[in-house]
Amino acid sequence: MFREMLENVREKRPLIHNITNYVTANDCANMLLACGASPIMADDEQEAADITGICDGLTINLGTLSSRKLRAMHLAGKRANALSHPVILDPVGVGASCWRREAALGLLEEVKCTVIRGNASEIKALALGRGGAAGVDADLADEITPQNLEKMTAFAKAFAEKTGAVVAVTGAIDIVADSRTAYRIRNGHPMMSAVTGAGCQLSALTAAFVAANPDRPLEAAAAAVCAMGLAGEIAFGRLSPQDGNGTYRNYLIDAIYRMTPQTLEKGADYEVR
Amino acid sequence: MFREMLENVREKRPLIHNITNYVTANDCANMLLACGASPIMADDEQEAADITGICDGLTINLGTLSSRKLRAMHLAGKRANALSHPVILDPVGVGASCWRREAALGLLEEVKCTVIRGNASEIKALALGRGGAAGVDADLADEITPQNLEKMTAFAKAFAEKTGAVVAVTGAIDIVADSRTAYRIRNGHPMMSAVTGAGCQLSALTAAFVAANPDRPLEAAAAAVCAMGLAGEIAFGRLSPQDGNGTYRNYLIDAIYRMTPQTLEKGADYEVR
Amino acid sequence: MFREMLENVREKRPLIHNITNYVTANDCANMLLACGASPIMADDEQEAADITGICDGLTINLGTLSSRKLRAMHLAGKRANALSHPVILDPVGVGASCWRREAALGLLEEVKCTVIRGNASEIKALALGRGGAAGVDADLADEITPQNLEKMTAFAKAFAEKTGAVVAVTGAIDIVADSRTAYRIRNGHPMMSAVTGAGCQLSALTAAFVAANPDRPLEAAAAAVCAMGLAGEIAFGRLSPQDGNGTYRNYLIDAIYRMTPQTLEKGADYEVR
Repeated sequence: MFREMLENVREKRPLIHNITNYVTANDCANMLLACGASPIMADDEQEAADITGICDGLTINLGTLSSRKLRAMHLAGKRANALSHPVILDPVGVGASCWRREAALGLLEEVKCTVIRGNASEIKALALGRGGAAGVDADLADEITPQNLEKMTAFAKAFAEKTGAVVAVTGAIDIVADSRTAYRIRNGHPMMSAVTGAGCQLSALTAAFVAANPDRPLEAAAAAVCAMGLAGEIAFGRLSPQDGNGTYRNYLIDAIYRMTPQTLEKGADYEVR
Repeated sequence: MFREMLENVREKRPLIHNITNYVTANDCANMLLACGASPIMADDEQEAADITGICDGLTINLGTLSSRKLRAMHLAGKRANALSHPVILDPVGVGASCWRREAALGLLEEVKCTVIRGNASEIKALALGRGGAAGVDADLADEITPQNLEKMTAFAKAFAEKTGAVVAVTGAIDIVADSRTAYRIRNGHPMMSAVTGAGCQLSALTAAFVAANPDRPLEAAAAAVCAMGLAGEIAFGRLSPQDGNGTYRNYLIDAIYRMTPQTLEKGADYEVR
Repeated sequence: MFREMLENVREKRPLIHNITNYVTANDCANMLLACGASPIMADDEQEAADITGICDGLTINLGTLSSRKLRAMHLAGKRANALSHPVILDPVGVGASCWRREAALGLLEEVKCTVIRGNASEIKALALGRGGAAGVDADLADEITPQNLEKMTAFAKAFAEKTGAVVAVTGAIDIVADSRTAYRIRNGHPMMSAVTGAGCQLSALTAAFVAANPDRPLEAAAAAVCAMGLAGEIAFGRLSPQDGNGTYRNYLIDAIYRMTPQTLEKGADYEVR
């Protein structure tokens, strides 16, 4: 199934509008090109909605957020909603400041997101919302582990139910869930956490997969997460003893560029719950 | 002849002021260092003109444009004109929004450009004053082909005549023209389109070549286009079966770093019309 | 001694807040990850102080400065001071415009810096309160040489005395000094000057070393300078005849990623005066 998802990306070559941070924008653009999609980065409120209008999908990434970019995100998000284009929200560092959390919550209220992708602590910070709605959610872990997997799966499904979005919680184990079904994915390599923006790149990749498979956002997001994890494994296999995260960063992008639909189908390591 | 152009860059080491996008700024800076020039990136209106004043050339690149940067572009462009320093305009994605097109047309009115470099759809959007570009990449229907080469050559010369600038239209075949003479260049490799900002890097490189050869902007721009295309060929020759656009991006910069004037002279593949 | 400094970085994994330029932000983030620290880039005044509050150290880098970022720098710097967190100031291109020099001098007045790191012309421009830098690269006449080494050492100590900061003047020879003691470091390779932002990366690395060794800022800064220079040597040793500054950039980061405390201890080449 994931085979077709990647085939569709390669065939349709979706154009993805990214309102994103300046730390990893270059890697996100090259990752989109690697999978067969096309990137456009534009973040000014005077053109954000127009740019979204000529694209097939939108990534909203909260890294290096500014008030100016936040306005553009609202305008672009609403235009994408009006056009029924997929919107991927990456709430980078959402727990790091009150302002960023308010910004993320405001976006969630105003823009219907197709996929929300972050690590466990980011998704948790987003789900806890204003005033930290304690209770069950309060003792959620910041990492997905074999021990908390069932609980985190239930949490992802519940947050998907609440938001209407596919929720992708990524880490050592990844969970991609809608309100009823969860993919639990074990692709990936620990060294990915030594590359800045591996998560941002995954969010951009997810936008490409969902834009090229618009009727199956859950499966498309799961396929993107498997592809990125598999790329992490392949890239690690190429490293020499002198190579570090600088070279690894390039090999991650290379691995997506060279990934065939067959490789993805065979290499994907997941279960459905 | 192109040999001397590169020799002059290496000898004079021009300092190039870039007001550019945050997606490819790092690659543009490393490309300038690779050819022997020095980069400075500064985009605030409070210092843009002063920075231009200590430099030898200016690149204005419309990627990730903002109102703030646009004001800096006007100030820097006017200072460069007053000092008779070369100005290279890269109208990234100019057809992607009305606002960006208006911004580009406003710059063309206020700032005398030495070279305008873009892909076919960007240059057409600029010349025709209306849309035509899909995102920042050349619309496939708007490529230079063997079939439309004469027509595109005439178009480039006419736009050069109108603007007083050297016009560089790049793609599978490149045309670099002033009102009377056109270089038609066949260096390059299709994989260059899988690297974000290969065009931005070429614009920065062009600024270095023109700044180091101020009396011959047409030949200098043509030499830069040949050098970039040749780098694309050399970089492709180095790729292993596992390498993709991540590694290719680095090899492009490496190829300019290692390029000798002799290699450029021998490898340049062009005709003059 | 430098061995322990790097061991502490790897063990404590300090979180570093960077208010920095968009040209080299990605490399700075990957360099921090390479040494074992974690990066956060955030530059909006609405969250800058909050972000600083959850971090262990702050880097203020003046590249691609804007009025908006400058306000964030003041807020973050004051918060870091209030929390006694180390602040590293990198006055990129401070001599290139009056506005940038005023901005740097204003920061020095309002924020107590733990380390100030720049090339000779930048540090001179800052110390003398007037021009001297050509672009963002060291003016050739302003390099540290064997001939001016004693004079430059005295200058660095005097500026350290005046500011209360450790002063790191980097170039072919590096000087890292407080008011009484100077490390003169001869690690490094000339090719480092062909990589944009090698200095920015060093400033980020210095923040990690100082944050992990808060009681010994002079030694920690000297260790970071040695580590970066040694990385430049190691990376150069890996280059093939076709490799240029594109590949070298990655190998620099790789070398820090792979550097053991033992390698640093053995490879550090310095004298104390």
